[in-house]
Amino acid sequence: MRPPLIAVTMGDPAGVGPEICLRILHHPEITKNCTPIIYGDTEVLRRCATTLHLPPPTQTLSHKAFLANPAPSAPCVVQIGTFPAADLQPGIISAATGAAAFEYVNTALTDALAGKVHAITTAPLSKEALHAAGHRFPGHTEIFASRCNAPSACMMQYSDEVRASFVTVHIGLAQVPQALSTPRILEVIRLTADAMAKIRTKNPLLGVLGLNPHAGENGLFGNREEEEIIIPAIRAAQAEGIRIEGPIPPDTAFLPDRRRATDAFVCMYHDQGHIPLKALAFDSAVNTTLGLPIIRTSVDHGTACDIAWQGKANPGSLIQALLMAAKLSHTPR
Amino acid sequence: MRPPLIAVTMGDPAGVGPEICLRILHHPEITKNCTPIIYGDTEVLRRCATTLHLPPPTQTLSHKAFLANPAPSAPCVVQIGTFPAADLQPGIISAATGAAAFEYVNTALTDALAGKVHAITTAPLSKEALHAAGHRFPGHTEIFASRCNAPSACMMQYSDEVRASFVTVHIGLAQVPQALSTPRILEVIRLTADAMAKIRTKNPLLGVLGLNPHAGENGLFGNREEEEIIIPAIRAAQAEGIRIEGPIPPDTAFLPDRRRATDAFVCMYHDQGHIPLKALAFDSAVNTTLGLPIIRTSVDHGTACDIAWQGKANPGSLIQALLMAAKLSHTPR
Repeated sequence: MRPPLIAVTMGDPAGVGPEICLRILHHPEITKNCTPIIYGDTEVLRRCATTLHLPPPTQTLSHKAFLANPAPSAPCVVQIGTFPAADLQPGIISAATGAAAFEYVNTALTDALAGKVHAITTAPLSKEALHAAGHRFPGHTEIFASRCNAPSACMMQYSDEVRASFVTVHIGLAQVPQALSTPRILEVIRLTADAMAKIRTKNPLLGVLGLNPHAGENGLFGNREEEEIIIPAIRAAQAEGIRIEGPIPPDTAFLPDRRRATDAFVCMYHDQGHIPLKALAFDSAVNTTLGLPIIRTSVDHGTACDIAWQGKANPGSLIQALLMAAKLSHTPR
Repeated sequence: MRPPLIAVTMGDPAGVGPEICLRILHHPEITKNCTPIIYGDTEVLRRCATTLHLPPPTQTLSHKAFLANPAPSAPCVVQIGTFPAADLQPGIISAATGAAAFEYVNTALTDALAGKVHAITTAPLSKEALHAAGHRFPGHTEIFASRCNAPSACMMQYSDEVRASFVTVHIGLAQVPQALSTPRILEVIRLTADAMAKIRTKNPLLGVLGLNPHAGENGLFGNREEEEIIIPAIRAAQAEGIRIEGPIPPDTAFLPDRRRATDAFVCMYHDQGHIPLKALAFDSAVNTTLGLPIIRTSVDHGTACDIAWQGKANPGSLIQALLMAAKLSHTPR
């Protein structure tokens, strides 16, 4: 079986994306498990390689040439768009860098939906640059949801130490309670159980977190969201044969014994899962979107413009994201 | 200087309290740094010692005898109340166990307020047992606040790995945004800065967390709680000379570098700080209440009735709580 082709979008040219992309081109564990195709800009990567004394990309292709024969046997760079690479100021995002980053993702999406690549792994883009370029998306997740027409998708963060999927993500804390519903929680439980069955075990154990301190302590704190919204979703999932525990008091979910025993936690809001993920697996977590018609993984960090193009960026999260995309690509879907 | 006398309330007799109290009576690090006075029940401790083949308490006193000469030189047990120890079923809480646990705390409070002991360290009691006994307090914190008439107190969790104080604690998540105010946040910042100056460094660095994902990302998520409520409190604290950063995106606050650099985090709600505390310092965190006229520390776990009286309870948190109480007792207040 040939290793899967994975489109790696280069992210914002002014951020850490070019550096971490260069660092995976010759990484033995990556090249053993997949063939990364960088969707980006050859000139930017060459400048970055020169600046940091890294090996430049050896195989580069026009997008047209890649589409004509999408079967490279070694990592390569596909030239997307017409970003004025000579004008780039490392660390300084702009409308131009945002437009370029969007174009890499958008083209990769078109190619993945057409079956030209097996999966997409995204390097970080800047929300501000995206907005400056006129693309009104909060981030990758929403671009993917929009292009894929996938209303029931959810975010998942994956690391060896702990894994979490999210019922709500980029909304204010005050909006969280009203955004919860039994059907949405059940949907996220199903997506999570399905993904975990594919990549971890045949019969994964999930943990669903409560919303309130101590999971409400039998209605003592909160508006009985556990009893009225979360528990019915857990019962429905159990009736479908899903192994699941909860509602777990949020602060005891991530105790060492429990997180080792649990394949994935279903979290009610962004920081409930992102706080322990970043505290415990700060440079190795992978972000993936479940429920899409294509496989998508992402690094778990931002553009980090303060350290961009300085040789300080850690490619660990990108490496893990690529390996997870490779694993998901091999699994029968 | 004589080591401080610390009242250790035994907690619910049916929980892990008696066992962990027995385990500290002969602990060399404890007896070097303080003199623990167990406020509890001699018969219960003797039964527990026999059950678990632990050394029984050697020095026992009536409460009257202790008050007549509150200067023991070795750890001892002070008999409080008239709990029917023979009826106790380990692991089974009841109105009687709740009434007894309340009495230990209440008596210790009276003695601490009268200056008979230097501090109080509490073993876990059961909220349900407390309620069954007719005491309508959610927990220790509220009993202390009520007896001490201290409206501006706040909870703090302390561990070597990470420290956090709390603007709100035992309320539902939906109630958190409306419970935040600039004066309350400033109050918690001041209490935290004061405590950290006493026990860590002369000029501690605090971090204040945002409420929303990514600390609202400049108003993109949430109702601008960061701009309108949290930032004014930070500015006011800075104007008072407090070293402070924020609002920090909640999920990046607890990254390894940041948590090492920060003496304490000011958290907006229970799980924002309790999730990382328990994930990172699960059996060594100490709970303390700042802003009281007396020193009070507590274990960071519950009655754990499922493992009570089985020899499985870890006394680590009680040991840390006692050592912290000893440290705070020695510091000029």
